[in-house]
Amino acid sequence: MTQPPACDWLETPLAQANAEMGRIAQQRQEQLTKPPGALGRLEEIAIRLAALQNTQRPSADHAHIAIFAADHGVAVEGVSAFPQSVTVEMIRNFARGGGAINVLARALGASLEIINLGTAHEMPALANVRDCRLGPGTANFVDKPAMTWEQLGQALTAGCEAIGRAQKDGRQLFIGGEMGIGNSTSATALACLLLHEDPALLTGRGTGLDAAGVMHKMAIIKRALALHRAQINSPLDALRRTGGFEIAALTGAYIHGAQLGLPLLIDGFISSAAALAAEHIVPGCTQWFIFSHRSAESGHAAILNALNADPLIDLNMRLGEGSGAAVTLNLLRMACALHNEMATFSEAQVAQKN
Amino acid sequence: MTQPPACDWLETPLAQANAEMGRIAQQRQEQLTKPPGALGRLEEIAIRLAALQNTQRPSADHAHIAIFAADHGVAVEGVSAFPQSVTVEMIRNFARGGGAINVLARALGASLEIINLGTAHEMPALANVRDCRLGPGTANFVDKPAMTWEQLGQALTAGCEAIGRAQKDGRQLFIGGEMGIGNSTSATALACLLLHEDPALLTGRGTGLDAAGVMHKMAIIKRALALHRAQINSPLDALRRTGGFEIAALTGAYIHGAQLGLPLLIDGFISSAAALAAEHIVPGCTQWFIFSHRSAESGHAAILNALNADPLIDLNMRLGEGSGAAVTLNLLRMACALHNEMATFSEAQVAQKN
Repeated sequence: MTQPPACDWLETPLAQANAEMGRIAQQRQEQLTKPPGALGRLEEIAIRLAALQNTQRPSADHAHIAIFAADHGVAVEGVSAFPQSVTVEMIRNFARGGGAINVLARALGASLEIINLGTAHEMPALANVRDCRLGPGTANFVDKPAMTWEQLGQALTAGCEAIGRAQKDGRQLFIGGEMGIGNSTSATALACLLLHEDPALLTGRGTGLDAAGVMHKMAIIKRALALHRAQINSPLDALRRTGGFEIAALTGAYIHGAQLGLPLLIDGFISSAAALAAEHIVPGCTQWFIFSHRSAESGHAAILNALNADPLIDLNMRLGEGSGAAVTLNLLRMACALHNEMATFSEAQVAQKN
Repeated sequence: MTQPPACDWLETPLAQANAEMGRIAQQRQEQLTKPPGALGRLEEIAIRLAALQNTQRPSADHAHIAIFAADHGVAVEGVSAFPQSVTVEMIRNFARGGGAINVLARALGASLEIINLGTAHEMPALANVRDCRLGPGTANFVDKPAMTWEQLGQALTAGCEAIGRAQKDGRQLFIGGEMGIGNSTSATALACLLLHEDPALLTGRGTGLDAAGVMHKMAIIKRALALHRAQINSPLDALRRTGGFEIAALTGAYIHGAQLGLPLLIDGFISSAAALAAEHIVPGCTQWFIFSHRSAESGHAAILNALNADPLIDLNMRLGEGSGAAVTLNLLRMACALHNEMATFSEAQVAQKN
């Protein structure tokens, strides 16, 4: 098999932004009562959202946040600063509303769903957690592919379906996030495969490894790359061999968001690795991505460079859970409010530039 | 005269942050369900606000925005890309709710007041504008001091009183902003005096000068510095000679905020020049300043360096009106929400780092 089964939706053409709406928005920005360009990147965001949302009045008021959680076989190699039990414990924490992303979603008035794609430790189904378990986490990709083609297809489709729910619910913007002990190792290996880079450039501290821990993590990734690199036949295969369930779900969400024309606010390192996979699987997806923040994880810069992305903020965050994207959402809302509500020079009878 | 009259309040001692509250907040951050430090500068902000507000539960929910507007005699030298009539026109625009800061204040649920300190063009008193006119703008500081000592005292006191109103109204944070054609020339001259710098380092494009315009502006500032530099006897005198009514009012607000212990969220270039003046007049004020954004105005970096300040965001904004600070306010709110509402490891029964 060389394709995930039951993923015909991957063939759907990408939506296209409306360039004319972008031009109309640009003209409006030049008429607002401020020096041209004085709102900097807030102008760029409003213009881009107008083109993406195909409207003269862009909005990020109604946003949906989906957090995909899963475990990683590679965690047994001791690549994380935290024990693997934390994945289950954090899913419970999210279900009770105590995680960072819960706090942010409440503060933002954003809808939030937690999607469990499979954990190594057992846990019951929880009322606030969508149950999409594909197994007890991925296989250890140092020894074999992390996923079967069936699992890859199911994980991609779990992300696709989250987008479908957001779209059906009238959401104007989608934030994906992730939780999974070991997932920075997985994301690093995946990015190394897609970018033909050495782990030395991309491997970082994750949740807080010390220097020796980073060296060990890098050695594990090197071993995995030695196993998989020569056998990979496609970006989907790279994702299957080294990704995680939650990373594949994010990838599916980003692809389907780009197909439906739903703007996607991308979080940090793990999410950007999924965005990179989406772009490699379906070139052109990136036009629907808005990169929110620059993560403190050292490999993020290389992925951002490859995607020609310049995130809006850099607050030295490295939490995941979609938290950097959530923190950035209000900047998009302000950009829209300024675009939609400021008076024009003629409305306000203000003189223009000499 | 070498002091502004009727400004005894300038002698009030500064409030002191509660370092113990900062330590308690630091300990709480280490117990929240996230890797230590993973929220980056949001942790730093929450800890700092806890110490400044002397509380275990910092908040930026109730913020006050005061916009000080005034004209500048130096505008007759052709130092701005916009005609001087725009100061009055923008005050009217603010009064009708059409300016960028109006949109942001509404989006933030922040209280907003517009304070007119004196314009060159006549205008009637307006219902939504506080009337504190000290004259038809400042004198042209190429020829003489911009202000009399009386005007300086009145302008400082106008800022002091805005802080008093914010404090009385239970506001937890203060944002000052400004509007005044020519005021980047005034702020640049003031910063050159206080930092003993050359205008070549500090002069920028303001509202949108071209290269020739910047050269002309720089030459005007050089002429002013040649007149005033040798005669200045204090930071207050530097402010009197080259400042504007609105810059002096911001300075007074920042000093009095530091005296009352009200955290001050500082906007861009003009506001930072006022913050620099405040620190030079009353050393120690800066501990109450939170620097919001890095302005696109080229001289901002030198002022920030002098104040050892590292703003939270850089969106290439250069509007003034307190807009960069307003755009940043939600980041402070999120930092507080995360600090106050996230579960701890023990509450959530999540394992800590190995």
